[in-house]
Amino acid sequence: MYAVVLAGGSGTRLWPLSRPECPKPFLQLLGDETLIQRTVARLAPLVAPEDVYVVAERRHMGLVAEQLPALPAANLIAEPMGRNTAAAAALAAEAITRPDDEVMLVLPADAHVADEAGFRDALAAAAEVARGGSLVTLGVTPDRPETGYGYVLARPPAREVAGRPTFAVERFVEKPTAELAAELLATGLASWNAGIFAWTRGTIRDRLARHAPKIVGPIRAICQAGELADLDAAYPSIRATSIDYAVMEPASLEGAVAVVPMDVGWSDLGSWAALRDVWQASVSGEAAAGAVGRGNRRDLGSTDTLVLAGDRLVVTIGLSDTIVIDTSEALLVCSAERSQEVRGIAQELMSSDRTPAPREEGQ
Amino acid sequence: MYAVVLAGGSGTRLWPLSRPECPKPFLQLLGDETLIQRTVARLAPLVAPEDVYVVAERRHMGLVAEQLPALPAANLIAEPMGRNTAAAAALAAEAITRPDDEVMLVLPADAHVADEAGFRDALAAAAEVARGGSLVTLGVTPDRPETGYGYVLARPPAREVAGRPTFAVERFVEKPTAELAAELLATGLASWNAGIFAWTRGTIRDRLARHAPKIVGPIRAICQAGELADLDAAYPSIRATSIDYAVMEPASLEGAVAVVPMDVGWSDLGSWAALRDVWQASVSGEAAAGAVGRGNRRDLGSTDTLVLAGDRLVVTIGLSDTIVIDTSEALLVCSAERSQEVRGIAQELMSSDRTPAPREEGQ
Repeated sequence: MYAVVLAGGSGTRLWPLSRPECPKPFLQLLGDETLIQRTVARLAPLVAPEDVYVVAERRHMGLVAEQLPALPAANLIAEPMGRNTAAAAALAAEAITRPDDEVMLVLPADAHVADEAGFRDALAAAAEVARGGSLVTLGVTPDRPETGYGYVLARPPAREVAGRPTFAVERFVEKPTAELAAELLATGLASWNAGIFAWTRGTIRDRLARHAPKIVGPIRAICQAGELADLDAAYPSIRATSIDYAVMEPASLEGAVAVVPMDVGWSDLGSWAALRDVWQASVSGEAAAGAVGRGNRRDLGSTDTLVLAGDRLVVTIGLSDTIVIDTSEALLVCSAERSQEVRGIAQELMSSDRTPAPREEGQ
Repeated sequence: MYAVVLAGGSGTRLWPLSRPECPKPFLQLLGDETLIQRTVARLAPLVAPEDVYVVAERRHMGLVAEQLPALPAANLIAEPMGRNTAAAAALAAEAITRPDDEVMLVLPADAHVADEAGFRDALAAAAEVARGGSLVTLGVTPDRPETGYGYVLARPPAREVAGRPTFAVERFVEKPTAELAAELLATGLASWNAGIFAWTRGTIRDRLARHAPKIVGPIRAICQAGELADLDAAYPSIRATSIDYAVMEPASLEGAVAVVPMDVGWSDLGSWAALRDVWQASVSGEAAAGAVGRGNRRDLGSTDTLVLAGDRLVVTIGLSDTIVIDTSEALLVCSAERSQEVRGIAQELMSSDRTPAPREEGQ
């Protein structure tokens, strides 16, 4: 079994800490490790560093090598530019020449998991299901009718694998309305789609060839010819789409997809509010309800507030449900409930800098 | 007639913009002028610059000279240290050797006035009352039951002077409870005490000798001996108290104080919320209800919010009733309704820097 960590995505939603030259996977958002370091460390008892691969944009390869010195250099796979997860998964499937029947885990570099042992148990079960030829997605048991994620709907009956229930996938549901999200939750069969997959190399290569031939075609040809430098010419015309749209959804219509639900305290850290929630959950007692964060900061009576300060003193007084992110380049002060709007501002600022707007990971 | 501008006070309430080395009177808080520049400019049609004096701490005299180049150097009166307004007024009364029957206006350097012509009319009326031997205070017509100010209660009947009603003072009321403030408002006879006074030099010297001999005594002796350098030795043991406590209140018990009410859009800019209010009032239309302020800033849908940014970009999203003050040394993000608490934090920070906590102007 080997694992492919996808470290694309610009993380505009975590501006101003996240920036094109150092996006989200490479940030220390929680604790002393960067998100990609924690992602690899979390896998270690199940997948050793020599079996972990990273797909990232070439301009970020220096960060990958620096932050993950235990990985063999050959395990770092550079894309000329970001082209979303379908291309990244295809490149991993073609460029990493391991046996066709070996299980390949694919997961994003920038998520948080509270229960890491539980997460590995779910991955192990997913790997076992994948050995049977399914495309497997890990589904996050939802705790609220979130409209910001895609959902995976399971089809009973459950099949027990490695001591936990697994299901065939009935269908994928794109980001739902609040009404539909509530209905999905009520079925008890819906999971959030977390972009974490297991399949054998043979299975994903077949499925890519069938459902996404224009994406995998040029990548396969280049990898088989051993001329990876040719990716530079090919990548710009490859469609930037997610592996969910390109492969998982059409394959699910053919009954080829399974889901392994897990309830492990997962967060995509997809907004400052999400980071605030994870931070609060990691703090015990009364402090969790106040101002959490780090750096040279001082608070007087704020609630549900995240403050990321640096060396410069940040004083907060009486804030509620607010995000304060202080960096040397810019300051963000944002109502937590509107932290989704950070992405639009960040993209706009980048385009006014004449920097191309970067892709965002996932759906 | 001459005017004495008191430029003491540390302005800890406007931290982090206001700092011991550059306190509030010397800041550009509104428009292109500093508060002390506007204070002098506002007087000009009534009192020419050569008749304007400034009392300030010696360490700030460089700022005074730089910001008010039209004032004669002899009009700058340095205190060795801040000792509140009783000492500052006594020093002005003793050190400025003008005729005993000339009217001396005394006013703080750091207030805002929207209706400047109306303000001068009130000063002119106060000067006329003062010529009769009263100590005169200008009272601000209150528009809310504010508990943060002292009140002056007028005793009818009104006496018309220079076309406006003036009154004897019944009594001074220190910062009231909310209940008492509402009662005071209901009388229609209460004004806020704004620390703006008119008296003849002879009157204030007599009153100081009578009500505050320990304050004026050593100052008078030093001034009469012409040995102003001796202030350094005398000042530390002079009681730091306001002219209101030291003179106005005891004199009012003898019926010696008058009040000239004025309704001229006065603000003491005594908190960030007060500055926000003045800023909003100066902006027309819908913009006034959004995010007001200056610098490199960008807002998305905030309301009743003041943002003072510098060169570094400040992005605010969805805030309400919030103050954001970004300086190179520190950042403040504060609920407007709790902006009074800034003072305590600033004092604490200064004392942890082992800098002596500075005095605050006024009561």
